[in-house]
Amino acid sequence: MSKITVAIHGGARDETEFIRKNLNGYKQALKESAQIAFELLKRGKPALDAVEAAITFMEDNMLFNAGRGSAINSLGYVSMDSSIMDGKDLRCGSVALLQKVKNPVQLARLILEENHHILLAGEGALSYAKYKGVRLEEDAYFILPHQYDMFMERRDKLTQKEQDALKNHGTVGAVALDAKGNLAAASSTGGTSFNRNGRVGDAAMIGVGCYANNNSCAVCATGDGELNIRSIASGYVSVLMEQGNMSIQQACDYVIHQKNKNAKGDMGLIAVDPKGNVGISYNSQLMHRAWISSDQEVIVKIHEK
Amino acid sequence: MSKITVAIHGGARDETEFIRKNLNGYKQALKESAQIAFELLKRGKPALDAVEAAITFMEDNMLFNAGRGSAINSLGYVSMDSSIMDGKDLRCGSVALLQKVKNPVQLARLILEENHHILLAGEGALSYAKYKGVRLEEDAYFILPHQYDMFMERRDKLTQKEQDALKNHGTVGAVALDAKGNLAAASSTGGTSFNRNGRVGDAAMIGVGCYANNNSCAVCATGDGELNIRSIASGYVSVLMEQGNMSIQQACDYVIHQKNKNAKGDMGLIAVDPKGNVGISYNSQLMHRAWISSDQEVIVKIHEK
Repeated sequence: MSKITVAIHGGARDETEFIRKNLNGYKQALKESAQIAFELLKRGKPALDAVEAAITFMEDNMLFNAGRGSAINSLGYVSMDSSIMDGKDLRCGSVALLQKVKNPVQLARLILEENHHILLAGEGALSYAKYKGVRLEEDAYFILPHQYDMFMERRDKLTQKEQDALKNHGTVGAVALDAKGNLAAASSTGGTSFNRNGRVGDAAMIGVGCYANNNSCAVCATGDGELNIRSIASGYVSVLMEQGNMSIQQACDYVIHQKNKNAKGDMGLIAVDPKGNVGISYNSQLMHRAWISSDQEVIVKIHEK
Repeated sequence: MSKITVAIHGGARDETEFIRKNLNGYKQALKESAQIAFELLKRGKPALDAVEAAITFMEDNMLFNAGRGSAINSLGYVSMDSSIMDGKDLRCGSVALLQKVKNPVQLARLILEENHHILLAGEGALSYAKYKGVRLEEDAYFILPHQYDMFMERRDKLTQKEQDALKNHGTVGAVALDAKGNLAAASSTGGTSFNRNGRVGDAAMIGVGCYANNNSCAVCATGDGELNIRSIASGYVSVLMEQGNMSIQQACDYVIHQKNKNAKGDMGLIAVDPKGNVGISYNSQLMHRAWISSDQEVIVKIHEK
C-alpha cells in the first residue's frame, strides 16, 4: 500500500475581522475536513471520493465561501462554481453559475462520471441537477448573515468602482493520493462578492482552478480567479511536474514567487505528487490549509508560514 | 520592424460531404481571413486587432461553425463561446453560452479592454453585450440551412446516445505577431451539434482554447473541446515554449502526437512564436488553415499535410 495523503485549503487572502473572530472555528473545520477525507483513504476509498468529501464538508460549513456561506454577487444572489478531476484517467467535471444545488462539487462529480461534456453552466447546469435528482436548497439556505451584512453595507456605501476593486474572493480546494497511487483534485467557490451577473471564475476551469494527472500531480489554485486564469495556475504546476525536475514544493513556489512575482493579487496553490509529497505556496497574508498523510499527523495552519 | 505573421484555422476534423461540396468556398474564406488580418499588421496595427478581424470574418462566414452558421444544440438553438488574449500584458476576455451577439469575439475583446472579469456566460454575457451596445441579431440569423437540416435529420433519426457520439464540432482560431513584437490569440465557436443546454467548450477557456504570452507564443486549440480541456492543450504548448527548448512546431507536434497520441478524438493546434515562426499540428483527416508572414505569401491548406 502506497502512502496516502490529503491536503486542503479554505482560501488564500489578507486578514479580515471575520477571520480573526472565527479563527478557532476555521481551524476546527479545516482539521475536520482533512480528517474526513483521510478516513476514506484509510478505508481504501479512491482519492476522488476523498476530495469530494472534503469539499462537501467545506461547502456545508458557513465559514467558507462555497456552498452555504457563498459570496453574494452584484444582483444580490449566490452563483457557485466547482470542478473535480480524476488523475487516473483524466475524467473531469465542472459547474458554473450554479444556483440552488446544495453541493456543487457533487454535481461536478456526476458530470465526471458521465464522461461526456465537462463544463455545464447556468440554467443548463441546474436542469442537469434536477434530472440527476441532487439535493436542492432555497436561495436563503446559501446566504448567511455575515455575507448579507457585507453585501448590504457595500451596496449602499460603495461606488461600482470601489465594489469592483474589493474582489472579496475565497475558494476551497482539496487534493489527495490514495492507496492505489491515484491522484484527484477538486475546487468549489461562491465567487467574489459583487461579481457581475454571468462571471465565471477559475474554480470552474479544469487546468486553471484544479487539475489532476497521475503522471504529474493533483493541484488546486485559489486567490484572485482572474489572476489564476491569466497564469494557467494549476496547469502550469502540472506541466512543470511532468516535464521538469522540480519537487512539488519547488513547482508551487516557482509559479507563485517567480513566474508571478509581480502579480497584483492573491494567489495560492496546494498540490500533492504521486509519492504523497505536499506542496503549498501563497503570496497573501494568510492561507487556510491543512494536510495529513500516513506518516504525518494532521497539521492546520492559517497565519503561520 | 520585426517580422509580422498571421495563422488561422477553421477547425480540425474528419472529411464530410459538406466540406467536399464547399472546398473552394473554404479555401477562399481562409485566404481572405488571413489576408484581412495581415493587412492590419502591415499598417502597424496590433496583433490583437488582427486576430479579432480574422475571427470576425470567419464568424460572419456561414461555412464556419462560429457566429453565423453555428451548430445547433440539443434544445434547437445556437450557443456560442469565444475568447481573446493579448500576449503583451496577459489581458484576456471570453464569453460562453452566448446568444444573439453577431460577433462573440468582439464582446470578448470588450471584456479584455475592461480588464476586470475574464469569462462572462449566459444571460450575464448578453446583458453586458446590451450595456456595451454591440450588434445583436435575431436567432434566425445564426441558423443556416445546412446546420438546420442536419439538426432536424439527427433529431428525428438518432437516439440521444447516437447524438452524443457524433460530437460534430468546429472552431475558428487566429494567432498573430505584430510589428512591435506583440503576440495575440483568439478563438470562436458555435459549439458541438446536439450539445446539452449549458455546455461550455474549450473556446471560452483561456489557457485551454487559446493563450498568448510574449514570452512564449500565441496558440489556439481546436477539435474535441473536452479533449482539449483534459489536456490543457494551449497552455501546455505555452509552458513548453517558456520552459523548454523546443521549436514552436516541435511543441505543437509534441502535444498532439506524443503527449496525446492515444487520444480518442480530434485535436488541432496553430501557434506563432515571438520570432514569427508558425507551428501547426493535428491528428484528424483534415484541418482548415492558412498562414502568411512578411517573408511568406499566404498558404492555404485543408486536406494536404
